[in-house]
Amino acid sequence: MSVASRAPAYIRSIQPYQPGKPISELAREMGLPEADIVKLASNENPLGMGAKARAAAEAAIREAFRYPDGGAFALKAALARKFGVDAAQLVIGNGSNDVLEIAAQTFLAPGTSAVFSQYSFAVYPLATNARGARCIQVPAQAYGHDLDAMAAAIAPDTRIVFIANPNNPTGTFVGGAALEAFLAKVPEDVLVVLDEAYTEFLEPEQRYDSLAWLARFPNLLVSRTLCKAYGLAGLRVGYAIAHPDVADLMNRVRQPFNVSAVALAAAEAALGDDDFVARTADINRRGKQQLTDAFASLGLEWIPSAGNFVTVRVGDAAAVNLALLRQGVIVRPIAGYGMPEWLRVSIGLPEENARFITALRNALG
Amino acid sequence: MSVASRAPAYIRSIQPYQPGKPISELAREMGLPEADIVKLASNENPLGMGAKARAAAEAAIREAFRYPDGGAFALKAALARKFGVDAAQLVIGNGSNDVLEIAAQTFLAPGTSAVFSQYSFAVYPLATNARGARCIQVPAQAYGHDLDAMAAAIAPDTRIVFIANPNNPTGTFVGGAALEAFLAKVPEDVLVVLDEAYTEFLEPEQRYDSLAWLARFPNLLVSRTLCKAYGLAGLRVGYAIAHPDVADLMNRVRQPFNVSAVALAAAEAALGDDDFVARTADINRRGKQQLTDAFASLGLEWIPSAGNFVTVRVGDAAAVNLALLRQGVIVRPIAGYGMPEWLRVSIGLPEENARFITALRNALG
Repeated sequence: MSVASRAPAYIRSIQPYQPGKPISELAREMGLPEADIVKLASNENPLGMGAKARAAAEAAIREAFRYPDGGAFALKAALARKFGVDAAQLVIGNGSNDVLEIAAQTFLAPGTSAVFSQYSFAVYPLATNARGARCIQVPAQAYGHDLDAMAAAIAPDTRIVFIANPNNPTGTFVGGAALEAFLAKVPEDVLVVLDEAYTEFLEPEQRYDSLAWLARFPNLLVSRTLCKAYGLAGLRVGYAIAHPDVADLMNRVRQPFNVSAVALAAAEAALGDDDFVARTADINRRGKQQLTDAFASLGLEWIPSAGNFVTVRVGDAAAVNLALLRQGVIVRPIAGYGMPEWLRVSIGLPEENARFITALRNALG
Repeated sequence: MSVASRAPAYIRSIQPYQPGKPISELAREMGLPEADIVKLASNENPLGMGAKARAAAEAAIREAFRYPDGGAFALKAALARKFGVDAAQLVIGNGSNDVLEIAAQTFLAPGTSAVFSQYSFAVYPLATNARGARCIQVPAQAYGHDLDAMAAAIAPDTRIVFIANPNNPTGTFVGGAALEAFLAKVPEDVLVVLDEAYTEFLEPEQRYDSLAWLARFPNLLVSRTLCKAYGLAGLRVGYAIAHPDVADLMNRVRQPFNVSAVALAAAEAALGDDDFVARTADINRRGKQQLTDAFASLGLEWIPSAGNFVTVRVGDAAAVNLALLRQGVIVRPIAGYGMPEWLRVSIGLPEENARFITALRNALG
């Protein structure tokens, strides 16, 4: 009997995450120069990394032969100051993906379950399945979270409810009042992981203060990342803010040096660069208009998005995607989410959006 | 009932890993300037990072607003070339710690067990406990692995045997012939994780070719890191070489972007810098002599080490450690390993070793 066949059945049935195609990979496959390729597939920041973060990352390389500070003292202090929370409430992750995995590892096991919405982030079922726990997927409402149905779906063995707000890959958004009402309905021994990876892209009128709820709901965990609006995707850094008891358990479960020294330094600097985040939100707002104007003129349906991407219905998305790739444009097919007619398009610089729109027009014939 | 109290009992009982104290932390605690502190606590490379790796890391920051290549195409190609293996045999980890955790996550669960030696790496019991699996700790022989006893300890529910060679924290070494004989005794459905984090420090006469065994033993996984001899501790990168079926499962379990873009680029460059590794091994050899000469002159017992550290018996190690810290010297107490009279000292530059020796002489009065 082989070693691989002895892994638990729930491990052997895991389907790998399908990431956005790297530029280098498309260049190899299509024989295209990398500089000619436009990637709007991974919700990256089209402005790149902010100058402050970049300088801090470069400086950190000099000392990166030393182990990182596993306790992340300086970054936690910066987060605690910025958000008015205690360092003991924080868990630093290797991207918020790591935060989600650590939460699953801490609270899920065979005999438990996690609740999440149809069309929500692929890592929720992956992380749940990898712990041998049961997935309770709740049908979406207009491609977004049906919070009433999710509250009703919580089972006696449920340990985590995952909510992405804004949601990825559909961009849908749930307002603060609805979220707060939902939290009041969740049993106090069920962790609510509120995944706010895209929160910096919310419009002022959409904003809500989830951190203010932590005192009232000790079962709330707010997950955020510096990989999107802060432009640190390649460095990998995110964080959770939760009750100190929850954070303590998760800090024991996480790998002691899960975040690189370069990511820690860049994240600390990035948190102090509000101007960069404001410019990012601004270019995102204009790019969203550019894309949705084009979709309207092409007669395409799209889902109104609160994030830095727009999901659009193109018909045979696999064929359209292939036609886009041949023109050097990478977007994200989401058939794996059960949306085979849709493509998720990250919002880029004006010229990148224009390249995509032209290529899409060609692809649709 | 609180969320934290609902975590599985095996999670709630995890004791966190005790890392080496960061220089910045001692500086804060003792009010010492960072430049005056000598850290010989984490088996880091005293030469720093090689010039090739450093240049690649710096260059990679420019594109680090993009997600890393989760498939690690270029690094896998470099490893495959260097070691004559297939890319499908490789799993890239966020340090070899991540490789060990992924192996545990893939093969361990409640109702299974893992075998490892007393006085071997702390992550083995941590990773085992975090999956609710049972730890089978086998008594050491002269502070090292007793392979016969380990083979005999394998139970019907055992899924992994961990072996560190050289061992951390004791530096002991098992020869290739003994390892090969051990592999022949292990059931084919039990994964042997051969952790070679320190393999680059072996003397020529100690070397053995574990990769040549992979064809004969499809249940062998060789784990290595670029955090020690290659000087990339702060960037976090390691790798496993295993049977393609084992690697495939582990690649499904690992986080899709577990290794940063900077680490991927630096690792690829570092693999091409054999000269740097040779200089590292050379300075390590001389430093080991310097330390053990001093231990001999102080009448201290030490464990002959095949790694880049030496473990020495100082009596009341907690008291000696505190006296060293007050002199700005950080080493590693290993009471947590059941060795309260011993300190593990990483081998540094000649002047760092001398600072430690002077401080130790003072501490011992």
